[in-house]
Amino acid sequence: MILTGKVLIAQGGGPTAVINQSMVGAALEARKFAQVTKVYGAIRGVEGILNEDFIDLSQETTNNMELVAQTPSSALLSTRVKPDEESCRRMFKVMKAHDIRYFFYIGGNDSSETLRLIAENAVKEKYDFRAIHIPKTIDNDLVLNDHTPGYGSAARFIASAFTGVNLDNRAMGGIYIGVVMGRHAGFLTAASAIAKKYPDDGPHLVYVPERAFSIDKFVKDVKNVYDKYGRCVIAVSEGITDEEGRPIVTTLRDDIEYDEHGNVQLSGNGTLGESLSDLLKEKLGVSRVRSDTFGYLQRSFMECVSDIDQREAREVGEKAAQYAMWNNSDGSIVINRTGFYSVDYDFVPLDKIAGKTRYMPDEFINEEGNHVTDAFKYYLRPLVGSGYKVAHRLRASHAPKLFLK
Amino acid sequence: MILTGKVLIAQGGGPTAVINQSMVGAALEARKFAQVTKVYGAIRGVEGILNEDFIDLSQETTNNMELVAQTPSSALLSTRVKPDEESCRRMFKVMKAHDIRYFFYIGGNDSSETLRLIAENAVKEKYDFRAIHIPKTIDNDLVLNDHTPGYGSAARFIASAFTGVNLDNRAMGGIYIGVVMGRHAGFLTAASAIAKKYPDDGPHLVYVPERAFSIDKFVKDVKNVYDKYGRCVIAVSEGITDEEGRPIVTTLRDDIEYDEHGNVQLSGNGTLGESLSDLLKEKLGVSRVRSDTFGYLQRSFMECVSDIDQREAREVGEKAAQYAMWNNSDGSIVINRTGFYSVDYDFVPLDKIAGKTRYMPDEFINEEGNHVTDAFKYYLRPLVGSGYKVAHRLRASHAPKLFLK
Repeated sequence: MILTGKVLIAQGGGPTAVINQSMVGAALEARKFAQVTKVYGAIRGVEGILNEDFIDLSQETTNNMELVAQTPSSALLSTRVKPDEESCRRMFKVMKAHDIRYFFYIGGNDSSETLRLIAENAVKEKYDFRAIHIPKTIDNDLVLNDHTPGYGSAARFIASAFTGVNLDNRAMGGIYIGVVMGRHAGFLTAASAIAKKYPDDGPHLVYVPERAFSIDKFVKDVKNVYDKYGRCVIAVSEGITDEEGRPIVTTLRDDIEYDEHGNVQLSGNGTLGESLSDLLKEKLGVSRVRSDTFGYLQRSFMECVSDIDQREAREVGEKAAQYAMWNNSDGSIVINRTGFYSVDYDFVPLDKIAGKTRYMPDEFINEEGNHVTDAFKYYLRPLVGSGYKVAHRLRASHAPKLFLK
Repeated sequence: MILTGKVLIAQGGGPTAVINQSMVGAALEARKFAQVTKVYGAIRGVEGILNEDFIDLSQETTNNMELVAQTPSSALLSTRVKPDEESCRRMFKVMKAHDIRYFFYIGGNDSSETLRLIAENAVKEKYDFRAIHIPKTIDNDLVLNDHTPGYGSAARFIASAFTGVNLDNRAMGGIYIGVVMGRHAGFLTAASAIAKKYPDDGPHLVYVPERAFSIDKFVKDVKNVYDKYGRCVIAVSEGITDEEGRPIVTTLRDDIEYDEHGNVQLSGNGTLGESLSDLLKEKLGVSRVRSDTFGYLQRSFMECVSDIDQREAREVGEKAAQYAMWNNSDGSIVINRTGFYSVDYDFVPLDKIAGKTRYMPDEFINEEGNHVTDAFKYYLRPLVGSGYKVAHRLRASHAPKLFLK
């Protein structure tokens, strides 16, 4: 049976540098199928569906679609709204009114839960409908996926940033703390590790949310590095917590902002980095302690995109259209690693992904809990893509002293 | 008369992405002259000279020198130490002991003052000696120069960063503040302006230290933009001051850190951005206000370098060696613009540069003092180099409403 009707594509959650590759991949591939009457895009994710705010992507030129594919951050705009069952029912009604038969939602694990709820309505009403989740997140925290589209480019930004700040810190001295996105999973913070080339390079310490963060241990770790190299570069995840699971920033400060879901607001302010800086100044007596919170630069930086990530983001979009049209079933596209380095794609039921979070496996974190292992670097390296730049040093020998001898 | 002896090269102040191009340009060019017996590099700028800590660059391979040239941040390491007359006397003695006859100092306007003081000692002691200043600063604030090496690459980083955060802000909504380096001159903050492509793109507002910053006017400006577009992206220089010249951060907060020179510490913390965010949340009642302080990422980011900047940084290094050898006089290399786009180099006495700061000319700042002019964009565009990436948008038309009609 060939299911004839419209395709709808939406993008949800935080943007990535390659999210438009997936949108363009799905849209252009869907156009090749005769049963697709139109390809619509929803403006601002689920908000666009609730408000019936669609654009007709079938009327875009291929050339402009290719240019948009190269542009970071959701071209269809996005939202943080998480729809409830009632909203999902309404969205289904809107889609039905438009004879939408294929819905592709590009997002994280919340998105696949939304898809599942919408698809339930279709079954109830015996409306032939395909709901396909296309993975996306810089956090790399979707289960069953070797990695997620968006992660490789953000990882490349983080690795390049630490290559630069390590050089800067080496030239100027002192202690440097870089705070990286990642509320629950440390994959992005861990990416800083491949910036380390020479034995005394930073990041010297890497702290991820998968390990409880001890303030005393932290101060001791930094002291050890500083005593050895006269400087220290630290990568720390915004999501680090103490033994009881309390965000470290709340244990160091008491003027903290909470969002509508009761979560601590971790991005868009430098509180964690500054609190840790103040701590080190006080405990170690080092005057030059600097912190940067990488903030919004890390997920949509135009000039630091992984070609591998672009390719895979494109392919998960294309595969979504293919699975929808040829397999006629709902599901989520997943990425499997099949070599060093090659991937293949698979299709799993939505509830295998929905609402689940993947963490860094133990083998990727060192025993001390303050850096990553070589196994992680081996895992990460292909994902940042080709042309990744590394630093070089002078190796010239010292000249003999003539004045002070 | 041919002056035979050693060459010494040093790098001072904050690093840039292309500072090693100048070092390598001077070192390799100097090697071509028979009167040059050795090419030394001073480790950590003037500190290395005071401590007689030199490496022998003549024993580097050309291949490794080329790789180092491509690497950001002072390969010879750097220092913030400003030597007094006594130190300059001592540095001269060290150089004399090594038969150093040519000293190339890559730095900002402080460096050319140091060179002048050292050269005075040589004259006093009738020691044949050439002191050459090679310009470098991301701040673009050296007088007589159309622009300075290091600026183009940092400007490219800022422009790319704002291209990305504008896309992010467009997708997610709210107000975004990006705080950019630049204590006295606004050239780097102003570079954000070329990120604006479509009429409703950010940065919508750009504040530079050349104009007194009024908190009331700022709130009004942001409200106007927010009312019009439902969002706002703001670029603000870390060095903005009020009518009386007080840093804005000190007027908004009272827990501010001062450095040993009594300057407010502007880099390495997010206080200004966060204070402005808090202000806007309170005055405009907008809940999603985010700020990033770009910090140390902006001056040594490996993957965002201008090829024009690299070429010119290389050439000022080469020209320094040539002027020293052929002209036999002290001075500073300056960059003149000779077309759109072409440059030529000139050689001016050290005291024409020393201790002077260049500001953005009035024609580069709009009348309201909250953005730049097209004249500035025309000035800047070639400096960020080739391959500069711009964003693209979907242009597809809206689909008719069927459910809500």
